[in-house]
Amino acid sequence: MSRSACKDGLMTTAIQDTYPEDFSHCFGCGRNNEHGHQIKTFAAGEHAITEYEPAPYYLGGGQVAYGGVIASIIDCHCAGTAAIAWMRANDMAVGEEESPRFVTARLEVDYLQPTPIGPWRITGVAEEIGARKVIVAAELSADGRVTVRGRAVMVKITAP
Amino acid sequence: MSRSACKDGLMTTAIQDTYPEDFSHCFGCGRNNEHGHQIKTFAAGEHAITEYEPAPYYLGGGQVAYGGVIASIIDCHCAGTAAIAWMRANDMAVGEEESPRFVTARLEVDYLQPTPIGPWRITGVAEEIGARKVIVAAELSADGRVTVRGRAVMVKITAP
Repeated sequence: MSRSACKDGLMTTAIQDTYPEDFSHCFGCGRNNEHGHQIKTFAAGEHAITEYEPAPYYLGGGQVAYGGVIASIIDCHCAGTAAIAWMRANDMAVGEEESPRFVTARLEVDYLQPTPIGPWRITGVAEEIGARKVIVAAELSADGRVTVRGRAVMVKITAP
Repeated sequence: MSRSACKDGLMTTAIQDTYPEDFSHCFGCGRNNEHGHQIKTFAAGEHAITEYEPAPYYLGGGQVAYGGVIASIIDCHCAGTAAIAWMRANDMAVGEEESPRFVTARLEVDYLQPTPIGPWRITGVAEEIGARKVIVAAELSADGRVTVRGRAVMVKITAP
């Protein structure tokens, strides 16, 4: 498992680098998808953080970022945040043990204002942690402003 | 403006082919974005229809389609559906006049069951049509089953 530096100064492993091998092909966050975004999400206190800069062709309705790729990054960030939160709640060592894999049951995205083409900082926190279900709230910031809020209901599909 | 055949047998123009030139660079639906999905949405009775087949690398948590690209396609499909519905409500000729451009204020996606990698059929219908705001409900079907439901609040950002 590769070691990476969290931008908050906490040395840790991205949660995606501990996903089970057979569940690491996701276009948004799979380390084994050469075409994809390969986002990396790090535990940081009670939160999880993803930093990402979209390619310049990810334009939306005008000369701003595409809402679809924003939804995509928030989706995978929430999956990572859910895995981190669930592991902590179950006394597992985040970054050291293989992580369970969560997928999305419901995604909500509120586009508060236009988002410039990156860099973006996405933060997330678990609102509810159940046996198999975790609800995550997320925010995307660009140029120091929160431009998008998201919320996702994530469901665990792998052991433990 | 290019003419295309609607798969329902109705000859018509895709709404995206009537978007204003300066608002046709969207990664999801812009005819001028060579990197993007370039989806095409057609009016069909009270509904709008998009057919799309994702590339095989758009995988999600397992060997099924990526929720992020599903959200992206539903997002742009709802923008197109909103433009069609708004034009009809304002006695404009869909496919013959330049369309107003809608962008997303809020997107909700419910992943009811895993979605296979295409082909997909996405249908949409306007639930509310206001002066600048249109609310659209959408469904994505694959292999004859509805696997995803979406809902979007779309806002008009260009004339008329």
